[in-house]
Amino acid sequence: MEKRIRELLASDRPCSGVRVQGWIRTRRDAKGFSFLEVNDGSCLKNLQVVVDAQIPGAEQLNRCTTGASVRVDGDLVESPAPGQRWEVRATRLELIGPADSTYPLQKKGHSLEFLRSIAHLRARSNLFGAVFRTRSRLARAVHEFFQARDFLWVHTPIITASDCEGAGELFRVTTLKGQPGERPKDDFFGRPTYLTVSGQLEAEALACALGRVYTFGPTFRAENSNTSRHAAEFWMIEPEAAFFDLEADMDLAEDFLKAMARHMLEEGGDDLDLFERFVDREVRARLRFVTERPFVRIPYAEAMEILRKSGRSFEFPPEPGQNLQSEHERFLTEEHFHAPVIVYDYPRAIKPFYMRLNDDGVTVRAMDVLVPGVGEVIGGAQREERLEVLRENLRFHGLDESDYQWYLDLRRYGTVPHAGFGVGFERLLMFLTGMGNIRDVIPFPRTPGHAEF
Amino acid sequence: MEKRIRELLASDRPCSGVRVQGWIRTRRDAKGFSFLEVNDGSCLKNLQVVVDAQIPGAEQLNRCTTGASVRVDGDLVESPAPGQRWEVRATRLELIGPADSTYPLQKKGHSLEFLRSIAHLRARSNLFGAVFRTRSRLARAVHEFFQARDFLWVHTPIITASDCEGAGELFRVTTLKGQPGERPKDDFFGRPTYLTVSGQLEAEALACALGRVYTFGPTFRAENSNTSRHAAEFWMIEPEAAFFDLEADMDLAEDFLKAMARHMLEEGGDDLDLFERFVDREVRARLRFVTERPFVRIPYAEAMEILRKSGRSFEFPPEPGQNLQSEHERFLTEEHFHAPVIVYDYPRAIKPFYMRLNDDGVTVRAMDVLVPGVGEVIGGAQREERLEVLRENLRFHGLDESDYQWYLDLRRYGTVPHAGFGVGFERLLMFLTGMGNIRDVIPFPRTPGHAEF
Repeated sequence: MEKRIRELLASDRPCSGVRVQGWIRTRRDAKGFSFLEVNDGSCLKNLQVVVDAQIPGAEQLNRCTTGASVRVDGDLVESPAPGQRWEVRATRLELIGPADSTYPLQKKGHSLEFLRSIAHLRARSNLFGAVFRTRSRLARAVHEFFQARDFLWVHTPIITASDCEGAGELFRVTTLKGQPGERPKDDFFGRPTYLTVSGQLEAEALACALGRVYTFGPTFRAENSNTSRHAAEFWMIEPEAAFFDLEADMDLAEDFLKAMARHMLEEGGDDLDLFERFVDREVRARLRFVTERPFVRIPYAEAMEILRKSGRSFEFPPEPGQNLQSEHERFLTEEHFHAPVIVYDYPRAIKPFYMRLNDDGVTVRAMDVLVPGVGEVIGGAQREERLEVLRENLRFHGLDESDYQWYLDLRRYGTVPHAGFGVGFERLLMFLTGMGNIRDVIPFPRTPGHAEF
Repeated sequence: MEKRIRELLASDRPCSGVRVQGWIRTRRDAKGFSFLEVNDGSCLKNLQVVVDAQIPGAEQLNRCTTGASVRVDGDLVESPAPGQRWEVRATRLELIGPADSTYPLQKKGHSLEFLRSIAHLRARSNLFGAVFRTRSRLARAVHEFFQARDFLWVHTPIITASDCEGAGELFRVTTLKGQPGERPKDDFFGRPTYLTVSGQLEAEALACALGRVYTFGPTFRAENSNTSRHAAEFWMIEPEAAFFDLEADMDLAEDFLKAMARHMLEEGGDDLDLFERFVDREVRARLRFVTERPFVRIPYAEAMEILRKSGRSFEFPPEPGQNLQSEHERFLTEEHFHAPVIVYDYPRAIKPFYMRLNDDGVTVRAMDVLVPGVGEVIGGAQREERLEVLRENLRFHGLDESDYQWYLDLRRYGTVPHAGFGVGFERLLMFLTGMGNIRDVIPFPRTPGHAEF
């Protein structure tokens, strides 16, 4: 009976006649038998397979080296070895695919930089197996969180003729060959098109029909930023809900972050243990920090006041009317409040046109969620639902109303208060696992100069 | 207490003090009161709201026209009207956003073509509300199907420097401005890059580490095809499993399609009723056709024999060594077998390089799943895991081995038999709902000349 190793290791009784298929992590030879540590990707732990030198296939043992794939038939029995309950006594061994000494993932440790250069193989290492299993589990938890709250998953377009925020570097999408005489209207879509930077505007259209929706899909930035937190291609989650005001939006964001941290604590298992041991000793403490504390909520003006009166010398002195820097954000959450913090009601001039103008005429209903170690992890807003104010916002930001006719229609016909936020899935993963580089939480990262695989 | 209409209509008792927020579908006026049909996107059915002309807010009734948004406080009571169990007696009415007579979705029916031109509003119609709720439910069912079988959701890259099948029209992704003197190495990634047509090759790398994975993400074709079944941007599901042979792959595909059809039958509810009434009277019969019958599995050569001996005159006469046409596929499933059919072992020359060569040297371990009305809905294969045979396949197809070094590494180091398949999510939705045009099952379709919204 074919079994995945995760099932076998969770067994509550011995079991004869099992089949295991996977890759050898190590082999140790003793007199008359060998121990194979076999992994099949289903969990972090290896299964110990004991191979008697007399069984069929044992003559291949010397080619059963690190990285080779094998098929093992045998019996699951209690292991006499310390630290593991079960092992498999092989009755038959089959070497499927050998791996010679040029296999790059030999037993010794490897740098993350080196492993990035073999992204097609790195998921076979303990660390990256844990990262990608965690990525899949958390992606599922994202779906479960929103669907339990009656949000529908919607697919907003990747190729777009507009730029959500009227800013940001875009990738152009084209079928033109770059030859003389080609005109924009000869292009596939008959106009210039780009890779989306956000599905928000389209999600708003769907929220104003279906009530509650969320996107979870790839988004793009052509920023030439070679930092550990920037990728050209990343996955974003953007909930949008009709009849939500900023308060409801902040509640949703707090619930979301707490649910993700709780999920990690409860379901992280061996993978989380690995992150704690080898990646970030603080990771569990940080997860508890998020799950256990109510988030502090303060207006931007108050946050600015706290920063200015803090007596701290920041690299960038806090300046009213300016964006908070990462060092400011971290001071507020790590040192001043010792809690996650939601800063809201930002100055209008530093936020996009679609955010709802407050009665003061100078701030908008924006909110950012700040957490230790990272700073901003979620950014959101209540959207401007009043047609005339939205028009004025477009003018204020120097945007051309004619580019936004369909978006204005949402305010012309049955407009409703609505709100939403955006979370970068990779940055969320970095926060929840402690991984320090965005290139190491996405299987095949895209960054300036890098589109291998 | 704020409630979504779906919850209220499923209530098992009256309830006082409820709040409902949504959009008016119709208003009927009687003497001293009015009936509002209100929809909030949570389900197909409207909630009937009875508004006495004396309650606060009733003075706004004449502006409560089709498309306007309202907030209603009141009590859920048994409805005396036939065909509905519950209605809400309003105690307070608030008009939030009016919609004047220019609102494009007035009560009368609209053509699908017209509704496409207002894709930002069409989800407010009964039909498109049903389509997008169904899309979200089925997307969730896809995740549940694979995760219940221990498959991990993986995110393969959207921007890629390679072309999976060595064929197909690609969109180019660039930050070059198309100005003289620009060189490919000046581009963002230092080389030409494209939008992916498939995540399969990368999924294979991950399956050869994690065991079982699936992609579910956007893919692209720059084909200039203006048909009802082609879109430039669509979502694809691609499972890939280590240690699966073609038999296991066919089992998985059959289970998948049956599970999706069963999910639609069991969870489709009012939305499925609507598709059956207004879109395709055969939809339930087709779903049962898939769930109830074992799929017939025959080799390509046998299928060809059946077609040639059928005595049918096809537009394209069946020709050994050539691909099956849609009319051939439909004949096999609809007329000959009266069952879904899996055709396997196709001629090597008409299938991509990565499929496993059979011992006959002329066919490969490909399989296509054929269903009535559509023809092929799933295409898959066991992959060539033997390094030397794969190299020979590359030469056979005229491809350059140096472009596939990382892919060959998967066969150099611990190679394993593996298999997978691909399903276009929109075509699956068309099959399961009866919707006839791919533009009508994705919120904002991208086709030649069309990238609005």
